[in-house]
Amino acid sequence: MKIVALTGGVGGAKLAHGLAQILPPEDLTIIVNTGDDFEYLGLKISPDLDTVCYTLAGLANPTTGWGLAGETWSVLSAVVELGGPGWFKLGDRDLATHLERTRRLKESQPLSLILRDFCQSWGIKQLILPMSDQRVRTMVDTVEHGSLEFQEYFVKLDCQPRVTGFQYLGAEEAFPAPGVIDRIHQAGAVIICPSNPWVSIAPILAVEGIKTSLKEKQVIAVSPIIAGAAVKGPTAKMYRELGWQPSALSVAQHYSGLVKGFVIDNKDAAIEADIKRLGMEVLITRTLMDSIASRRQLAQDVLNFIGTIL
Amino acid sequence: MKIVALTGGVGGAKLAHGLAQILPPEDLTIIVNTGDDFEYLGLKISPDLDTVCYTLAGLANPTTGWGLAGETWSVLSAVVELGGPGWFKLGDRDLATHLERTRRLKESQPLSLILRDFCQSWGIKQLILPMSDQRVRTMVDTVEHGSLEFQEYFVKLDCQPRVTGFQYLGAEEAFPAPGVIDRIHQAGAVIICPSNPWVSIAPILAVEGIKTSLKEKQVIAVSPIIAGAAVKGPTAKMYRELGWQPSALSVAQHYSGLVKGFVIDNKDAAIEADIKRLGMEVLITRTLMDSIASRRQLAQDVLNFIGTIL
Repeated sequence: MKIVALTGGVGGAKLAHGLAQILPPEDLTIIVNTGDDFEYLGLKISPDLDTVCYTLAGLANPTTGWGLAGETWSVLSAVVELGGPGWFKLGDRDLATHLERTRRLKESQPLSLILRDFCQSWGIKQLILPMSDQRVRTMVDTVEHGSLEFQEYFVKLDCQPRVTGFQYLGAEEAFPAPGVIDRIHQAGAVIICPSNPWVSIAPILAVEGIKTSLKEKQVIAVSPIIAGAAVKGPTAKMYRELGWQPSALSVAQHYSGLVKGFVIDNKDAAIEADIKRLGMEVLITRTLMDSIASRRQLAQDVLNFIGTIL
Repeated sequence: MKIVALTGGVGGAKLAHGLAQILPPEDLTIIVNTGDDFEYLGLKISPDLDTVCYTLAGLANPTTGWGLAGETWSVLSAVVELGGPGWFKLGDRDLATHLERTRRLKESQPLSLILRDFCQSWGIKQLILPMSDQRVRTMVDTVEHGSLEFQEYFVKLDCQPRVTGFQYLGAEEAFPAPGVIDRIHQAGAVIICPSNPWVSIAPILAVEGIKTSLKEKQVIAVSPIIAGAAVKGPTAKMYRELGWQPSALSVAQHYSGLVKGFVIDNKDAAIEADIKRLGMEVLITRTLMDSIASRRQLAQDVLNFIGTIL
């Protein structure tokens, strides 16, 4: 069965990697959020795309989840010595990705084409697609600073500002990247990876046509929240600031109407009935991916779950 | 006495470094060719400016003359692995210079201001000025490839095409960078460093107003050709292809009318009389700068020579 995974950065990339360990490469398509792409030092950075690619290629830094293993930091430290900005950490080899992507984007080559070539260089056999070749900008509306670009909120301000909402600028005018809708149509199931619903998955769903194409599909989501806390990142904090209880149930409510099956951690077993009341099937399993083996195990559990609800 | 040095890359930078070892910092201004500036990987590269700065800061690679000592090459090798261009060698820390310069140029900051800040970071006390804050492009007209950007001719095609002439695009519309004309007016003498007359010095002289301001000055030039050969680069080859004998005499003829004193190597002592017939005073000394001490010695010889002809 062909599977499409929708994902943001670190957490989603781990599940995508688990799926890649099990499925034949041609059966897995990974559609990645580009709403938090931004410009830094004049370079066009696609943090989620790079995290997914580095993870699938086995090149990712296992400690941070982002960036490359064994990275050096000569360039950024020299930029800072020259008085330049150093708030976004770019390793030397990671920087090559941004330089070459920027060079080709300036030649008007589409992001999806550049990515395909990069994946070939990195030995990635699965098809990884940006949600769109057009620019969509996830803006975080905050109490203290008004509307912020996501990376400014996330990295520069360390998620400190209180969130009041989100905007996905350009999403309505953006087209899905070539292949996105086709691969969704061909998929037996679509997995929403355990990524931040607001800033990783919502931008993908906001691109004209993607949400509609999912309506006919079996969609399964994995909660990024375990026992009221996010494994990584500001998901739980965002839920609180928006007036929701940070819980797997809130995530399920968020995806209500779209999702047929919902995957929660053993620690959240008590909310199974609440989620079922939303009309979803529930899988209770270990969702924390703290090893390569646990990525594969969760992927296998999710694939088995899909088999039971089809 | 205040001295202004006009210079291109490696050879000129060495003499500038020799002068910097002798003169009080406030008495030395170095005006640098930017005609071979170009874009590469989306970065704005100023090869001669960087060579002069790295040399004066004591950071230059002593083997190549360009680039930084102890440099690493992670970024460029990763760019090449991704299928990107690798023909212009950019080390990791050197790349930081280009990134930060490009970032600031894109904010419409003038090159001369950026350079001043960089010099402060690098501990350089002399004033180093680009010839202009506007873009001047040295084009090399060739038999085989028509008109080429200088770096394409110089690095990418390894000086192989046969040269028929030069153009300095934009030079007539370009203004001298702030400080260039003032410092020339204040100078007791102007030294034309042993740089390529066609592609290092001519672009400086082509900028509106610079050549005129030199007319009232004591100008001394050091030949970049010793015994018919260039110490480095295509100077001699260019002279041959343009129908001139590659010799210190040809360089002197090139500067005829502008230059009062001309410095040649001991090996060229035989042409002293020919150069004097051009109306120039002649200094015969050792001009090969193959050590830090020999840079200082040549600088001292040139300064003494200036003392004798003023």
